[in-house]
Amino acid sequence: MFKKILVANRGEIALRVIRAAREMGIGSVAVHSTADSDAMHVRMADESVCIGPASSTESYLSIPAIIAAAEITGADAIHPGYGFLSENATFVQALQDHDINFIGPTAEHIRVMGDKISAKDTMRALGVPCVPGSEGGVPDLDAALKIGEEFGYPVIIKATAGGGGRGMKVANSAEEMPTAFSSARSEGKAAFGNDEVYIEKYLTTPRHIEIQVFGDGKGRAVHLGERDCSLQRRHQKVFEEAPGPAISAEERARIGEVCANAVAKINYIGAGTIEFLYEKGEFYFIEMNTRLQVEHPVTEAIFGVDLVREQIRVAEGHDLSFTQDDLIINGHAIEVRINAETFPGFAPRPGKINAYHAPGGLGVRMDSALYDGYSIPPHYDSLIGKLIVHAPDRKAALARLERALGELIIDGIETTIPLFHALLQEPEVHSGDYNIHWLEHWLEQKFDDK
Amino acid sequence: MFKKILVANRGEIALRVIRAAREMGIGSVAVHSTADSDAMHVRMADESVCIGPASSTESYLSIPAIIAAAEITGADAIHPGYGFLSENATFVQALQDHDINFIGPTAEHIRVMGDKISAKDTMRALGVPCVPGSEGGVPDLDAALKIGEEFGYPVIIKATAGGGGRGMKVANSAEEMPTAFSSARSEGKAAFGNDEVYIEKYLTTPRHIEIQVFGDGKGRAVHLGERDCSLQRRHQKVFEEAPGPAISAEERARIGEVCANAVAKINYIGAGTIEFLYEKGEFYFIEMNTRLQVEHPVTEAIFGVDLVREQIRVAEGHDLSFTQDDLIINGHAIEVRINAETFPGFAPRPGKINAYHAPGGLGVRMDSALYDGYSIPPHYDSLIGKLIVHAPDRKAALARLERALGELIIDGIETTIPLFHALLQEPEVHSGDYNIHWLEHWLEQKFDDK
Repeated sequence: MFKKILVANRGEIALRVIRAAREMGIGSVAVHSTADSDAMHVRMADESVCIGPASSTESYLSIPAIIAAAEITGADAIHPGYGFLSENATFVQALQDHDINFIGPTAEHIRVMGDKISAKDTMRALGVPCVPGSEGGVPDLDAALKIGEEFGYPVIIKATAGGGGRGMKVANSAEEMPTAFSSARSEGKAAFGNDEVYIEKYLTTPRHIEIQVFGDGKGRAVHLGERDCSLQRRHQKVFEEAPGPAISAEERARIGEVCANAVAKINYIGAGTIEFLYEKGEFYFIEMNTRLQVEHPVTEAIFGVDLVREQIRVAEGHDLSFTQDDLIINGHAIEVRINAETFPGFAPRPGKINAYHAPGGLGVRMDSALYDGYSIPPHYDSLIGKLIVHAPDRKAALARLERALGELIIDGIETTIPLFHALLQEPEVHSGDYNIHWLEHWLEQKFDDK
Repeated sequence: MFKKILVANRGEIALRVIRAAREMGIGSVAVHSTADSDAMHVRMADESVCIGPASSTESYLSIPAIIAAAEITGADAIHPGYGFLSENATFVQALQDHDINFIGPTAEHIRVMGDKISAKDTMRALGVPCVPGSEGGVPDLDAALKIGEEFGYPVIIKATAGGGGRGMKVANSAEEMPTAFSSARSEGKAAFGNDEVYIEKYLTTPRHIEIQVFGDGKGRAVHLGERDCSLQRRHQKVFEEAPGPAISAEERARIGEVCANAVAKINYIGAGTIEFLYEKGEFYFIEMNTRLQVEHPVTEAIFGVDLVREQIRVAEGHDLSFTQDDLIINGHAIEVRINAETFPGFAPRPGKINAYHAPGGLGVRMDSALYDGYSIPPHYDSLIGKLIVHAPDRKAALARLERALGELIIDGIETTIPLFHALLQEPEVHSGDYNIHWLEHWLEQKFDDK
């Protein structure tokens, strides 16, 4: 139904959308900054429009420039990719005002989920499990001990007026509560002039588990299981997999149903991801991303679906092309993010690609906007490729990942490929026994990365 | 259980095997001619041995050179790929004599299936449908008419002593029988001094349908459905797909069971393909290939299996890793064979690759031994790559094929990529309505290819 989709993004995700559009017989428009004139997404799209200088603020983040490009080229829909304007309610509202379709949820849903507090309130009301916390301030030690018993230790005591880690104390047991409670109060008083504190359950070694949901905007929604993205450095995911090695089929069905029901209830449309911390069999809501995730290919692999095609279809007004019963997990998939960065060190290293050779063969997918001779501009995110492998089980997927990484050639710049070779030597990566702190500890111990 | 596999082949299939070995933690040895010193399979294997000059007879077909390479490197198994020594019973016997494992069936099975007559006799005895024919000579017109009625017209009358098309006459109906019968006899008499003729059912517009089978050598076997490889030029397949657009689930189950039972009964071990002509709901055995096929990836795609891994496993003595019930078709897959040839014309064009860029993204697999700067030697087969796409249905697979072909860059030589762009414009390719003659007719009409 859409005739032409403008892709308001760059790099591999712009290619991802252009590919889906092409396979659906829909025209594609690339937009680009002056720094991206030679970028692959420009070469691959049916048409392209330069929308501004290298600075993102004046190009990929410029709402007027992007709307003008859509109007000039006659694009009737815009796909935002991830990042940039993908979760910008003002952008979505502006498109609506200009009668251009947005491939994504409504401005209202983006707004609600974009605010941490309203997101948490909404999700809690929809039955999604959140980190348990005291309702408002905790008046005295007796009340604190009661809460500690209710939530189970450890708990964290936080100054109501606090921030930046100050006025925060962890109590690992009832014995530690008196000291922790009083020192959180006095630190709060000293730092913010207010000794009121509240208490939350404290997760020591959680995993990052996120649930992929998809709604049709008409009250129907499904979930596509979880992704485990616990391997993170400074809150940046580097290695993602599906299904999660720690999640049982029962847990998946339970939390998946909760999430699907929640987004169905609010008539959510399109792809969304509900992120959780997971510890000891319990899920705790962190936030909802109202867009496609970088790591969506692992979900596509195990369910045999095309999430971008589905985004486009529901934005066109179609029903979902799959029901919950259609969605059956097949094998195991892993994605690693290849960045143009030093390893160790993780310092950005844009530059010219002297040789590029993608791995091939069974169960290997490469999503990258690289080509031989391409110069990576220094202005944008350092993600330059995603290598996704799919195999019948986790062990085979890890073996395939190692094999494919060995074939991948990106010469002329430094990349994080060696990180993954090193990770594949670690028993914890093979056993799947890690939490959100594991990677940073490992990097610190092995590579002095702080 | 194998420690090191020598791959007695080159090109993309050598890579295919090296990849599987690596993922299984098995070492790999490449063998190569002097013309292939810079070939990708040499670069990718753990070790490599030069086994002779460019001429295949003195290198890839030299049994002593290959056995010596295995002994020098301590390889305990040999995978033959396809072509070269893959269906050479003498080779398999020699390996057995040297205590080297062959990853494939027994010498005896290769021998039986390598001979057209013994293959057909064996298959018929095993219940596999063959082209119906008279038992021996047909004495007179009355007997001929009786046979015509029994088989259904058209039938072909062939001189028993004949060959090369001489003494062959087609009768399309009972009315045409007297003339056809007497002229076949007299042609036979004139050409071979013998007027005895026999009669076979004549297929006018068959499809090429082949059934993938897999046996464990212990009396168990499964089938992995069919591949439709009807698009052929001079008996060379150029475009293969699975499942076959003309084959129903019932037909698949029926012929699949017949094939699986047949190979189970003879304790067949490893991968095999039973090729049929298919017309009006009936299958007619042509031959059995006792090796991996070029087009095996389409079967891997729709069943989510790794056929080379499975070959290695059963050669190690393991049971099959899947039962018939595990094998469920998921979507549709198409492979196109990229040759280093002119189009039109199909004249070989080896040479130096100036630029190589493989397509990426969802549902795309590229099996190729090309790399940027590689010089294709003129001594071998012109197949330089296989592009395989997988999507939920045939229509989506064709769209994905077109998209992926558009991304594929092989510069510096001529290739058959334009053939596939042209084919994708044809309604018959989209409807799947073709037989084994269609491609040649189309090439003749559109491109004057004779």
